[in-house]
Amino acid sequence: MAQKAWIRGLGIPVLGVLLYPAMTTAQQPALNLMPLPANVQSGTGSLAVESSFSVAFTGYTEPRLERAGERFLKQLARQTGLPLALKPSKTGKGTLVVQTDHASKEIQEVGEDESYILDVSTASARLRASTPLGTMHGLQTFLQLVDVSPTGFAAPAVTIQDQPRFPWRGLMIDSARHFIPLDVIRRNLDGMEAVKMNVFHWHLSENQGFRVESKKYPKLHELGSDAMYYTQDEIRGLVAYARDRGIRVVPEFDMPGHSTAWFVGHPELASGKGPYAIERKWGIFDPAMDPTNEKVNKFLDDLIGEMTRVFPDHYFHIGGDEVNGKEWDANPKIQAFMKAHAIKNNEALQAYFSGRVQKLVTKHGKTVIGWDEVLVEGVPKDIVIQSWRGQASLAKAAKQGYRGILSNGYYLDLGWSAARHYAVDPMSGDAASLSPQDKQRILGGESCMWAEYVNPENVDSRIWPRNAAIAERLWSPQEVRDPPSMYARLDFVSARLEWLGLTHRSVSRHMLQRLAGSASPAEFAALRTLADVIEPVKDYTRAQTALAEATSATPMNRVVDAVPLESDAGRRFGELVDQFVAASCHDPAAEARLRVQLTTWRDNDALLQPLAQRSFLVQEVGGRSQDLAALGSAGLAALDVIAKGQPAGDSWKAQQLASIDAAKKPKAQLLLISAPAVQKLIEAAAAGACSSAKP
Amino acid sequence: MAQKAWIRGLGIPVLGVLLYPAMTTAQQPALNLMPLPANVQSGTGSLAVESSFSVAFTGYTEPRLERAGERFLKQLARQTGLPLALKPSKTGKGTLVVQTDHASKEIQEVGEDESYILDVSTASARLRASTPLGTMHGLQTFLQLVDVSPTGFAAPAVTIQDQPRFPWRGLMIDSARHFIPLDVIRRNLDGMEAVKMNVFHWHLSENQGFRVESKKYPKLHELGSDAMYYTQDEIRGLVAYARDRGIRVVPEFDMPGHSTAWFVGHPELASGKGPYAIERKWGIFDPAMDPTNEKVNKFLDDLIGEMTRVFPDHYFHIGGDEVNGKEWDANPKIQAFMKAHAIKNNEALQAYFSGRVQKLVTKHGKTVIGWDEVLVEGVPKDIVIQSWRGQASLAKAAKQGYRGILSNGYYLDLGWSAARHYAVDPMSGDAASLSPQDKQRILGGESCMWAEYVNPENVDSRIWPRNAAIAERLWSPQEVRDPPSMYARLDFVSARLEWLGLTHRSVSRHMLQRLAGSASPAEFAALRTLADVIEPVKDYTRAQTALAEATSATPMNRVVDAVPLESDAGRRFGELVDQFVAASCHDPAAEARLRVQLTTWRDNDALLQPLAQRSFLVQEVGGRSQDLAALGSAGLAALDVIAKGQPAGDSWKAQQLASIDAAKKPKAQLLLISAPAVQKLIEAAAAGACSSAKP
Repeated sequence: MAQKAWIRGLGIPVLGVLLYPAMTTAQQPALNLMPLPANVQSGTGSLAVESSFSVAFTGYTEPRLERAGERFLKQLARQTGLPLALKPSKTGKGTLVVQTDHASKEIQEVGEDESYILDVSTASARLRASTPLGTMHGLQTFLQLVDVSPTGFAAPAVTIQDQPRFPWRGLMIDSARHFIPLDVIRRNLDGMEAVKMNVFHWHLSENQGFRVESKKYPKLHELGSDAMYYTQDEIRGLVAYARDRGIRVVPEFDMPGHSTAWFVGHPELASGKGPYAIERKWGIFDPAMDPTNEKVNKFLDDLIGEMTRVFPDHYFHIGGDEVNGKEWDANPKIQAFMKAHAIKNNEALQAYFSGRVQKLVTKHGKTVIGWDEVLVEGVPKDIVIQSWRGQASLAKAAKQGYRGILSNGYYLDLGWSAARHYAVDPMSGDAASLSPQDKQRILGGESCMWAEYVNPENVDSRIWPRNAAIAERLWSPQEVRDPPSMYARLDFVSARLEWLGLTHRSVSRHMLQRLAGSASPAEFAALRTLADVIEPVKDYTRAQTALAEATSATPMNRVVDAVPLESDAGRRFGELVDQFVAASCHDPAAEARLRVQLTTWRDNDALLQPLAQRSFLVQEVGGRSQDLAALGSAGLAALDVIAKGQPAGDSWKAQQLASIDAAKKPKAQLLLISAPAVQKLIEAAAAGACSSAKP
Repeated sequence: MAQKAWIRGLGIPVLGVLLYPAMTTAQQPALNLMPLPANVQSGTGSLAVESSFSVAFTGYTEPRLERAGERFLKQLARQTGLPLALKPSKTGKGTLVVQTDHASKEIQEVGEDESYILDVSTASARLRASTPLGTMHGLQTFLQLVDVSPTGFAAPAVTIQDQPRFPWRGLMIDSARHFIPLDVIRRNLDGMEAVKMNVFHWHLSENQGFRVESKKYPKLHELGSDAMYYTQDEIRGLVAYARDRGIRVVPEFDMPGHSTAWFVGHPELASGKGPYAIERKWGIFDPAMDPTNEKVNKFLDDLIGEMTRVFPDHYFHIGGDEVNGKEWDANPKIQAFMKAHAIKNNEALQAYFSGRVQKLVTKHGKTVIGWDEVLVEGVPKDIVIQSWRGQASLAKAAKQGYRGILSNGYYLDLGWSAARHYAVDPMSGDAASLSPQDKQRILGGESCMWAEYVNPENVDSRIWPRNAAIAERLWSPQEVRDPPSMYARLDFVSARLEWLGLTHRSVSRHMLQRLAGSASPAEFAALRTLADVIEPVKDYTRAQTALAEATSATPMNRVVDAVPLESDAGRRFGELVDQFVAASCHDPAAEARLRVQLTTWRDNDALLQPLAQRSFLVQEVGGRSQDLAALGSAGLAALDVIAKGQPAGDSWKAQQLASIDAAKKPKAQLLLISAPAVQKLIEAAAAGACSSAKP
């Protein structure tokens, strides 16, 4: 088809105008699309979305498209509050007419055509796609276009020609360390569909749990899961649910390390003597499978055979990360085997193991994917490397002819800002200088939600909204990388995601209510004022600063568990300070807003302390509340100095910085995120940077 | 058993100390219990609730109690965030030991023993009850006792001896005018359990829909429901779900009026010629069953027979309200029948019909309940009257030997405040002077959620939290009637109810987000500031002031649909003004808070208007926003006058009152609820009531 010629190239828009919200004018309202499409051409006017709205499927149809249509209409009804008819039209006519050319693969493949063209005019809308995958993406784009307008709900007139930059756009959820029930998984798949992610990587086995029913070896889940596992029927249902949303499900069974839970029921697989118990702590542990034991190979042959029948995807993740080798070192039989077979070290032993497992996976008709460590000499070229180590590792693999995906930089549990994740590009660093052919081997990336410090209650809030920024990185053209534009759209999309049932925003209020108990409305407001500008410590600091070692039985009901990983209020305060200082402090409106905010912080502690006396969980942040008051006072002092128009000098600066010193340090595993911005104000006041041109 | 002798009397506490939060001292924290128990004796110290918490059932047990125990543990885990074991202990030992004496009736009866005794000491807790009904109530009380403390989660040491004042404490939900799906019904049953209501009255047929599958007459639901009905299997599941929570399910099939939807499939039942279509409008309509047609009697015999097998409760509600008689007047055959049988008017004809239906219900082993109109001469004494007319009607029925329940004053759709519902007592008015024997016939009451202006999305927010105040009226001793105490506890209980899955608080933010579209955070905050102090118009004013007649297809996505029916912020502002004026305006803290609030209102309109330009749904409240600004300005002017210490006089007062005149009137079907409080400030300033003693 002629219309599609121009969208064939991967990630290279050859026609149309790239239109980013940050570039729009007042006449041209920004489109709140995330991920931003490859090509957007804005038209004039808008299509009214009224109670009579209908959608019709033409061309190729299948039951999955019918269901997608019903889901689309239900979501549109939620977004608008209009009493829409919730079934697609059977007449071929509708406000939105969809045309799909042909089926996609029964088992979704990497790199299938996901492109679509969406034309919205003032009279109607038309969506065209080669396959249902593109159709489903286009429906999500249409949903994002619909917004309230001066005359009713409407979608702006626009032509969108869109396709993904990368074919592998994944989210990994670890439901092994903390079990995550299916309803929570399902609503996260709904979120993935909304932002066009297409791989759900399910981390299913760990030291802390084996989460899949095995009919062949039932002791795996019976003794290795604390009765928290998915039945095979449930998994089949989940895989169907994902396929309905254009999402592949890649299971991971982590081997030969990260496998203590297997050994509870099957100690014969291990390299140590046992007995083994489900691990309750976090970290890297000694137990590992015995690569030299033929019975292990036979067992894995059976199990992989069983699991490849439960999970239809062509890829099968074998983990392979972080083996410390202690059990191997301590086992004379293994040492003898290594000597006999000239296996010179543990790395080589792991390579030997990986090679054998890879053969089993191949035998059962699947392709191996594994973490960096599985890439050892002689491994066949068809495996896929998932890099937790970074672009250098990824580029090296690509050069050697291996395909890979990036996860380094996309670990959601590290608490990075959306902007920081957003800046990570699979094609940057060493990958940037790859040949075009090698670049083709970089299939995309996956965000990872490791579950030491998340549970079913707060996992949504650890994934979203930041995951939407990663989804955009993997879908949109590489040039789409303006953080202010991203944040503006993320705020909108985040609200929309809650309509799908995700709880990333609402759960924070619930959890704060729990720890506030019978707080008065004023006390609760004070707690929220504090909670709005604190973030959990980043990277692995939480584990490193714990007063008592956390285990899987540690309650997650503290402030650090309740607040979002990224503070919107803190970011906005920082932007406001930047704006104020950039205007040489001649911005009365910004100054007034800063004063209101700083005064609130200064006075907040007095409101909060009575509650801290009554709740041990609020007590924990009593110190942070005092620190916030200090920030408020210091910021106001800086504004006073600036208002006088005279630089305050170094000794004043030293004194003020000392007063916020405590605020800048982590406490109760929490960061006061507005401290650096207050420091900027102090420095501006001290240096007179703002006062020189003061009228 | 000796312990129970003192709790036998209905509603008359004979032992123990009535302890209301309003009476507590600083040393004695108020208990956030709702409904307040009949007897509370506070102890010293508290019982720690930790991860090791367990519950054991002793004495009589049954699967329902096991499930209640699991539900209890799950809810306790939610409330505390502790990783509790979620199964009751099998050893008979536990932190909370429950003893139940014997089973309750298989089909729950009116007036079964629902009492319980709950003893909490610093070491353990003990719950005793005659039947599972009392046990389940006691578990809910324990859940309400648990709160965060300086040292962890805990329940205060206390002895509670509790039983209900009335045996019939119901909530009616109309799922006929707007269909309410089962998941929404279920979470409302969870809410009922939490506040100890024990009757779910299910209004299932109306002009706008017949909502139950009939196997005998399938055209009823096939043609009368727009495919929105409950299957018999679903109903059986719901009845079991309710029984698990100590709740009876009383079905209502409204006859002979309110029945247009029946006639779509069965026009032969009607008194008019037809054809009939499902009614889309609201109001009282002409169609009515033909009481003179033997085929109607036969049909109802079949249908009532079928439905009494689906609904096990001993009571069967036949409606019977609001027949306008026009179809009867216009039907010569009916007129001839009346003449032949000396039926002198339509009221008598309806009595004739009710009498026949009552016989059918009796034949099928059930007792009739109906609205006031079913009480006509000669009706057997065992029927129950549900009074929408009021206490006089109820008292009259009681004197005649009929049992009754009160619903007048408990119509949740009228938008009354919790305090106003709370003041309505089934035993007040004419009922207060009844003999003790007649009083026994007043079984309790039911709140009613009529569904013209609610849908599945916002129905929770129309029922809760106000329904909890009605639940307390029907459970707690009559002397429990202090609104400040009620509101303090209601606020706490309302937050807890959201843990059960009810959405009465969160939905308002969601719906405001919808109508704000891509608002900036500042604009959205401005919308919330306005939304916080507006309430939908009361009683039947919404229907009377609609610009276009509402139908069942009218979208419910307006501000009037999104804001709660009672404004907490408005109530608190009013209390603050009262406190300020009562202190002769010598309350600097209150004055400061009033100034902050009034300034916010004055300046809010400028923030909101840009959004109103972009959203037709916000535009609708643009006028209310200006009115709020006027209130802010006028209130600040009044505070300025008061600060000067000179009465401002009548002409100033007239001028200021004129400036808030628009604010006092309904607009966009919304009331600006803080207007009367601002008027108080103006009057205080004008009269110098506050200035005479000013220092």
